[in-house]
Amino acid sequence: MHGNAMKVITFGEVMMRLSAPRHQRIGQVRSFESTFGGSEANVAASLTAFGVRTEHVTRFPENELGIAATAYLRSLGVGTSYIIHGPQRMGLYFLETGAMQRSSKIIYDRFDSAFSAISSNMIGWDEVFKEANWFHWTGITPAISAGAAVVCLDALYAAKEKGLTVSGDINYRRNLWQYGKKALEVMPEFVSLTDHVVAGVADIENCTGISGEDLASSAANLFSAFPNVVSVSSTNRTSLSASHNQIDAEMHVRGHKYQSSSYELNPIVDRIGTGDAFMAGLINGWIHKWEPAVTLEFATAACAWKHSVEGDVNIASVREIESLMKKENIGKLLR
Amino acid sequence: MHGNAMKVITFGEVMMRLSAPRHQRIGQVRSFESTFGGSEANVAASLTAFGVRTEHVTRFPENELGIAATAYLRSLGVGTSYIIHGPQRMGLYFLETGAMQRSSKIIYDRFDSAFSAISSNMIGWDEVFKEANWFHWTGITPAISAGAAVVCLDALYAAKEKGLTVSGDINYRRNLWQYGKKALEVMPEFVSLTDHVVAGVADIENCTGISGEDLASSAANLFSAFPNVVSVSSTNRTSLSASHNQIDAEMHVRGHKYQSSSYELNPIVDRIGTGDAFMAGLINGWIHKWEPAVTLEFATAACAWKHSVEGDVNIASVREIESLMKKENIGKLLR
Amino acid sequence: MHGNAMKVITFGEVMMRLSAPRHQRIGQVRSFESTFGGSEANVAASLTAFGVRTEHVTRFPENELGIAATAYLRSLGVGTSYIIHGPQRMGLYFLETGAMQRSSKIIYDRFDSAFSAISSNMIGWDEVFKEANWFHWTGITPAISAGAAVVCLDALYAAKEKGLTVSGDINYRRNLWQYGKKALEVMPEFVSLTDHVVAGVADIENCTGISGEDLASSAANLFSAFPNVVSVSSTNRTSLSASHNQIDAEMHVRGHKYQSSSYELNPIVDRIGTGDAFMAGLINGWIHKWEPAVTLEFATAACAWKHSVEGDVNIASVREIESLMKKENIGKLLR
Amino acid sequence: MHGNAMKVITFGEVMMRLSAPRHQRIGQVRSFESTFGGSEANVAASLTAFGVRTEHVTRFPENELGIAATAYLRSLGVGTSYIIHGPQRMGLYFLETGAMQRSSKIIYDRFDSAFSAISSNMIGWDEVFKEANWFHWTGITPAISAGAAVVCLDALYAAKEKGLTVSGDINYRRNLWQYGKKALEVMPEFVSLTDHVVAGVADIENCTGISGEDLASSAANLFSAFPNVVSVSSTNRTSLSASHNQIDAEMHVRGHKYQSSSYELNPIVDRIGTGDAFMAGLINGWIHKWEPAVTLEFATAACAWKHSVEGDVNIASVREIESLMKKENIGKLLR
Amino acid sequence: MHGNAMKVITFGEVMMRLSAPRHQRIGQVRSFESTFGGSEANVAASLTAFGVRTEHVTRFPENELGIAATAYLRSLGVGTSYIIHGPQRMGLYFLETGAMQRSSKIIYDRFDSAFSAISSNMIGWDEVFKEANWFHWTGITPAISAGAAVVCLDALYAAKEKGLTVSGDINYRRNLWQYGKKALEVMPEFVSLTDHVVAGVADIENCTGISGEDLASSAANLFSAFPNVVSVSSTNRTSLSASHNQIDAEMHVRGHKYQSSSYELNPIVDRIGTGDAFMAGLINGWIHKWEPAVTLEFATAACAWKHSVEGDVNIASVREIESLMKKENIGKLLR
Amino acid sequence: MHGNAMKVITFGEVMMRLSAPRHQRIGQVRSFESTFGGSEANVAASLTAFGVRTEHVTRFPENELGIAATAYLRSLGVGTSYIIHGPQRMGLYFLETGAMQRSSKIIYDRFDSAFSAISSNMIGWDEVFKEANWFHWTGITPAISAGAAVVCLDALYAAKEKGLTVSGDINYRRNLWQYGKKALEVMPEFVSLTDHVVAGVADIENCTGISGEDLASSAANLFSAFPNVVSVSSTNRTSLSASHNQIDAEMHVRGHKYQSSSYELNPIVDRIGTGDAFMAGLINGWIHKWEPAVTLEFATAACAWKHSVEGDVNIASVREIESLMKKENIGKLLR
Repeated sequence: MHGNAMKVITFGEVMMRLSAPRHQRIGQVRSFESTFGGSEANVAASLTAFGVRTEHVTRFPENELGIAATAYLRSLGVGTSYIIHGPQRMGLYFLETGAMQRSSKIIYDRFDSAFSAISSNMIGWDEVFKEANWFHWTGITPAISAGAAVVCLDALYAAKEKGLTVSGDINYRRNLWQYGKKALEVMPEFVSLTDHVVAGVADIENCTGISGEDLASSAANLFSAFPNVVSVSSTNRTSLSASHNQIDAEMHVRGHKYQSSSYELNPIVDRIGTGDAFMAGLINGWIHKWEPAVTLEFATAACAWKHSVEGDVNIASVREIESLMKKENIGKLLR
Repeated sequence: MHGNAMKVITFGEVMMRLSAPRHQRIGQVRSFESTFGGSEANVAASLTAFGVRTEHVTRFPENELGIAATAYLRSLGVGTSYIIHGPQRMGLYFLETGAMQRSSKIIYDRFDSAFSAISSNMIGWDEVFKEANWFHWTGITPAISAGAAVVCLDALYAAKEKGLTVSGDINYRRNLWQYGKKALEVMPEFVSLTDHVVAGVADIENCTGISGEDLASSAANLFSAFPNVVSVSSTNRTSLSASHNQIDAEMHVRGHKYQSSSYELNPIVDRIGTGDAFMAGLINGWIHKWEPAVTLEFATAACAWKHSVEGDVNIASVREIESLMKKENIGKLLR
Repeated sequence: MHGNAMKVITFGEVMMRLSAPRHQRIGQVRSFESTFGGSEANVAASLTAFGVRTEHVTRFPENELGIAATAYLRSLGVGTSYIIHGPQRMGLYFLETGAMQRSSKIIYDRFDSAFSAISSNMIGWDEVFKEANWFHWTGITPAISAGAAVVCLDALYAAKEKGLTVSGDINYRRNLWQYGKKALEVMPEFVSLTDHVVAGVADIENCTGISGEDLASSAANLFSAFPNVVSVSSTNRTSLSASHNQIDAEMHVRGHKYQSSSYELNPIVDRIGTGDAFMAGLINGWIHKWEPAVTLEFATAACAWKHSVEGDVNIASVREIESLMKKENIGKLLR
Repeated sequence: MHGNAMKVITFGEVMMRLSAPRHQRIGQVRSFESTFGGSEANVAASLTAFGVRTEHVTRFPENELGIAATAYLRSLGVGTSYIIHGPQRMGLYFLETGAMQRSSKIIYDRFDSAFSAISSNMIGWDEVFKEANWFHWTGITPAISAGAAVVCLDALYAAKEKGLTVSGDINYRRNLWQYGKKALEVMPEFVSLTDHVVAGVADIENCTGISGEDLASSAANLFSAFPNVVSVSSTNRTSLSASHNQIDAEMHVRGHKYQSSSYELNPIVDRIGTGDAFMAGLINGWIHKWEPAVTLEFATAACAWKHSVEGDVNIASVREIESLMKKENIGKLLR
Repeated sequence: MHGNAMKVITFGEVMMRLSAPRHQRIGQVRSFESTFGGSEANVAASLTAFGVRTEHVTRFPENELGIAATAYLRSLGVGTSYIIHGPQRMGLYFLETGAMQRSSKIIYDRFDSAFSAISSNMIGWDEVFKEANWFHWTGITPAISAGAAVVCLDALYAAKEKGLTVSGDINYRRNLWQYGKKALEVMPEFVSLTDHVVAGVADIENCTGISGEDLASSAANLFSAFPNVVSVSSTNRTSLSASHNQIDAEMHVRGHKYQSSSYELNPIVDRIGTGDAFMAGLINGWIHKWEPAVTLEFATAACAWKHSVEGDVNIASVREIESLMKKENIGKLLR
Repeated sequence: MHGNAMKVITFGEVMMRLSAPRHQRIGQVRSFESTFGGSEANVAASLTAFGVRTEHVTRFPENELGIAATAYLRSLGVGTSYIIHGPQRMGLYFLETGAMQRSSKIIYDRFDSAFSAISSNMIGWDEVFKEANWFHWTGITPAISAGAAVVCLDALYAAKEKGLTVSGDINYRRNLWQYGKKALEVMPEFVSLTDHVVAGVADIENCTGISGEDLASSAANLFSAFPNVVSVSSTNRTSLSASHNQIDAEMHVRGHKYQSSSYELNPIVDRIGTGDAFMAGLINGWIHKWEPAVTLEFATAACAWKHSVEGDVNIASVREIESLMKKENIGKLLR
């Protein structure tokens, strides 16, 4: 049975995304395709498509761009009841999609956004977490501003107090962290409140100072330092070209390593948000108490599938992901 | 010499095709690309591009959509003199084009169309078949409605009486056949009036009850049961991804199997209508009395070529197909 | 240091380019994408992106199309101070981009253009060459008209007199050369004034009558016949499909052959102008007195990179090309 | 205070709308713009933009088109919790937008839709009407099918029993009513359960047999025959050209006629759904117990505003409509 | 009964039309909308939509552009059996559509086209005129080249010999006539073979040297000089802005002047080809032997209607034109 | 003679402009049209089209958006040699174009841009003003940041010292001025260095505290307070709808008022930048020492013309503006 009784809360910034069409370089563009996205909201949207109830908490500008962003989340079925508003701007990013060996590029333009100006008492987390089972955050949020870090930490404490499970995608972004704190000062407290971690070796080192030769040893060391952490997972990507990647994933649960199947991704339609699709796949498995191996396979297939979908968000049903896991109808024409 | 003296008649439904652009999922679409297509008309259009005279017989709604569909056929050079009209709707289909492992999807919306409401005395086949050499039908038509089945059968009897050669693409569509008859009750009579059959093992079994381990044995059994049948052909497709397929084909003439070259298809622009391109290639060979092996190679190359052309219809000259058969100028830039 | 002190002059026709979108066949097009391009101007534009000062000399119609073409060159940073105008038409070309095995096609429509009507005293080369270090021409120009050939030859003599280095892309175009002269009658004098030649075996034979088993022997023979020639270079392309090519290049300097790395190009966005990108890479190396091997590697990487960029012109910085040479960030997502 | 406490329920079919772009005739179209619309859902969406809580009840196909339609309603903030699904098709309509004297044209293709196949026990109206204050229906619904008529009548009885106010837009559509009943046999019972009626003289005559010289007399006669009816309202449109109309409106409350201001509409962006915008304006006034004259002015301004908005739905805030009523910032540029 | 028995032959150049979208100036364009048009073919297409059989005779290049142009005519139902081909180029024109006071602009690029290279024995007019009732030409054709003038004159003699009625739109184009002859040397012979003339005062003077104070006196003088001429007609346009014109028309038959109604045209979608729509309206009236006043009203309404249709060609049925004449459904929404 | 010898310097921010297409509301947009604009650069671009040499001085981000903006200015022929770069963001604005009574809306997103972070010693004005005759500034610049105000003031002093004429468009923007200073504290010094002022009554009051009943009296008072000011000009706009405005203008020179003709603007294509077109018209007149009345008429016609051109910039030649002044070819089709 797919989880209508389950409810997942996500928190983080949603940006307007302005993409150059047809692999154009940004200097060639006369018309940007526009949509919205943000790591945590992408996770919520993907979970919604899997049949899970979700609410995304964020702060938008009071203008038409904020209204449009809310409408976008609503169209995906994500709950928007706790979104708040402020006079600041909408964060946005420009995307140039690479081709062949030429890499893709994101120009972020997210400073001084309505979200970054969030502060401690703006969200009533106790109200938000009513009926909720799960809270998800990423390492982007505490990197944005002191206010965002505090509100996210408030959420973590409230979530743990209410008995929610917590997942965190420790996503170290070097270009953020400009408000005077370092990740190493801030992140350990976040990790100490998190059950399921998604992170690579470098993320773990940058956020907790814990190192390792590979993810297995990093995870082992993390498990020692943070007894609350239940699992550490990560995708592994090989980039053959901008439109041809290979992906697989691994999950470490205390004492056991799970390794997923590998997917050939070619040609990629859109690789933005594929990590979020993986995250949503993991949460969907855990929330339904699937076996770790099944959860990991599902999440990896979800990640792979997202590469075929335009935009930040994975549009896929559980049935579609399971069909990919079974290699059914690969690339066929279904009538 | 290419067949201006030859004239091929085709009969079947033509639908409006509404395609999601750029591999979008249907839920993302704000603007559908629209064109028209239908298996039998696709064959006619492809033959026209090969230099064969054609007429497509069908029934359209009396509204602007019917006018537009007729104009489309006319633009391709297909004769439209015998098209009739009725008050019902235009059949249509929505196309979502897959990417990577994600399959493509067609949502048919063709019930209660003007074509499905066709009935027995609406077409004057004797008039239609004047000056004609060949009649082509597919298994889709008798599956649509009792009326369509009867009119098609009338055509077959008239064609045989007039001495036309008849080809049939026995295309078993499980989702059709909703008017109360089963394929097995209807189709054997159709096959008994057909000279050249295109079918796979499953099509043959579903339409005639004749089975076989492979197409060779199915065809052998079909030849036994239907002494009128001259050849049985089929393409064989391997689907590596939505944009990378491999295709080859085989033809069974009593006592002999011909096997075509294989084509690597990557990246596919549009795979709709590729079977119709194969069919048109076969008819073009047979009508010009080419050797079976040449006919099969030409048809397979035509099928391969179609994968590079947007829309339902193969736009290719005989010279272009022959050039592909000889591997000339593969992927080059011709100035 | 990148060459702001350096200034390269190019001379040749610039055409309006009308491209069929999305691999459409020309007969399917309802809306042509339009830009401008021409071999020599493409070289100038690419050099400008590398930080070299450039001027492109040409002749445009006096109408809005000429104004638009000038604006296009200006937007790329190419100097347009010496462009002249006449009452004739804008040359143009239609581009159908192939897919899979189907080749791409150019329909040229450049006869009787304002450029072809250029004549001897229209350009003041002494004025143009002030402050200039380099002059670049191609074999297209002397093939267009007697007037174009004379003006180009005037430029070559003026350039040599002023001490500029001269490069020439001997590009034999069979469909041009319709004004009564043959390439063999005209081109040797051009070659005798050129320091750096880009040409394949067939180009050399068609333009000078000098043959060879391979480029090494052709180049050796060319060096013997034309003591002024310093280097002969060429790319070698393998066309696996319209969107998958392999490319490498070789350079012959008296007594030495340099061979570049090979690049896998898949999927190609636009292969028009890739030879011009190679040429610009060579000039950029020579003008900065890089080692021949480095120059060739840079030029080959520039050629490869261009395949990922829409339009006639290579949009790439020196840093981007060097990054490709080092295989950095291949197909990655840079944030 | 704007009505968050208020909740309006609407019921009716939502169709996919396929519009010819740029005033093209349907035969010229290569790409249809697609959105969704339906009279009752348009009312709900417009009310939502005014700050009223809404739920739209309908029946969609189980396929991706049904999912897309639901997402569309959700993006507008309309509640979709009670939408049900069936195996039938999505109703749709094609729109050709006129120009100058040339009229606009709709080709409906809505027969045999999932909505038309609705039947009596599919909707739990008691559940739907919890927390609701208002129910709105139109004359389109009972014209679609016997099932749709019955379900709508069930809703009316349930609504009255629950004490909801009921509004009905008696919209007589001659081309519907094909299931064997006539409007005159069906509609009087509907009217007898309705508080606020929107109708013209012809609608009233076609649906109830009651006639009048003008709307004043028709309304008076309707009030006599149906003591439950509180108000009768209608817009009056003068069509000077496809892009230039004039509109005003009148409201009849027992004993009093209210006449609105008149609006010059030029150039019209989209006139579909303007009647629904009027209806939503009326409901918004009534539900907030505004004076009839204010309600009518607001509704007329809402109707006028809709002509400037692309699509079926009025996108406007209460503040924007009030600003139009006051002739503030007419056509200005607001920074 | 509308004229299926009637057949009209037209002769003239068809060009590719490349239009700047959305009132853009040509220097702003990145994507040209492309279609085809030519005065005489536009007349044929419009007559076809009125139910008249037509053949258009022209000469196209042998390349894909010629194929596309033929397909375009065929899609409109115009017969293309007598179209011939040559190695020259496709004539084309660029269109910038004005706005407000800013005028629209055409940049012709038609010299040296395949049509201009037509010569005397290329068309078998006797064959073409079999079953035909009417031949139509315009003053553009004899202005293009000596060959075009001769072939057109051949057609006129053959038409008169076969008893066809001849109409001519004497359209004096100052920028053509560059092949060494003047209109005054060439055109009188053409007029002497024409029954129905469309011309303004200046056209008549430029083509025959006959002047007049107004069209009435010019026509009277023309009738004296050319006893074969039956009628002289012309539209009168007032241009208030690029999108707002007024149009009416007059027809002079020996001894009588007919004056049409006047049409307000606002906003104009496309004014190219509106004179051709008028011409087609006249031919349709004459061929069905309508009263002159009815013919003129029909032609004027057809001309007016064309202003609402994108492209060169009037897409309108006789019923639609008659509806405009009766002011039915002006600018309404027809469901 | 048109001013090639003249050179005008402008200084100010250039933003990326993201426009909603086809009158869509911002919440409906899926694809924003993108271009660049800024009041002072718009003036430079328009002057360039009039034949005046220009340089625009600004500060752009170091990323691809800054490169694209520079390329845009270059394509218009505006000099970009003195543009500097910084690590901050590109200012941008979103544009929703109204329709009918619905007003257009700009959402600015320009805080913290690379331009706003400009500071005093970044521009070498003495170098910039070599060969220059004129400097133009607007009231937007000193409103952006303290740094921008200081750099602009430096420019004014340097300009006066070098003997340049100075024009200023005192454009009071209430939503700017957020850096701690008020306009009244800053602007009088700017005005005291300006020869030609464009301003309305409210602008003058907000920037200098000088009031008046109408522009005549405000200007008179300004002349008294600022003996350096030579002229005060302003347009007067009547907004009938978003696409129909009327415009005229007045100019006050000490002791004389000039009043321009009035223009009916319908339908407006784009009204952004129309004040800048007026400004450029004034500078063009003054710089060529035209009579004030001629200068004002030219500027008003330039302003009117801009309403017909998409984007921020007026694309018009002097000949086109003069043609509009003479009412030549109004809305005609020029072949």
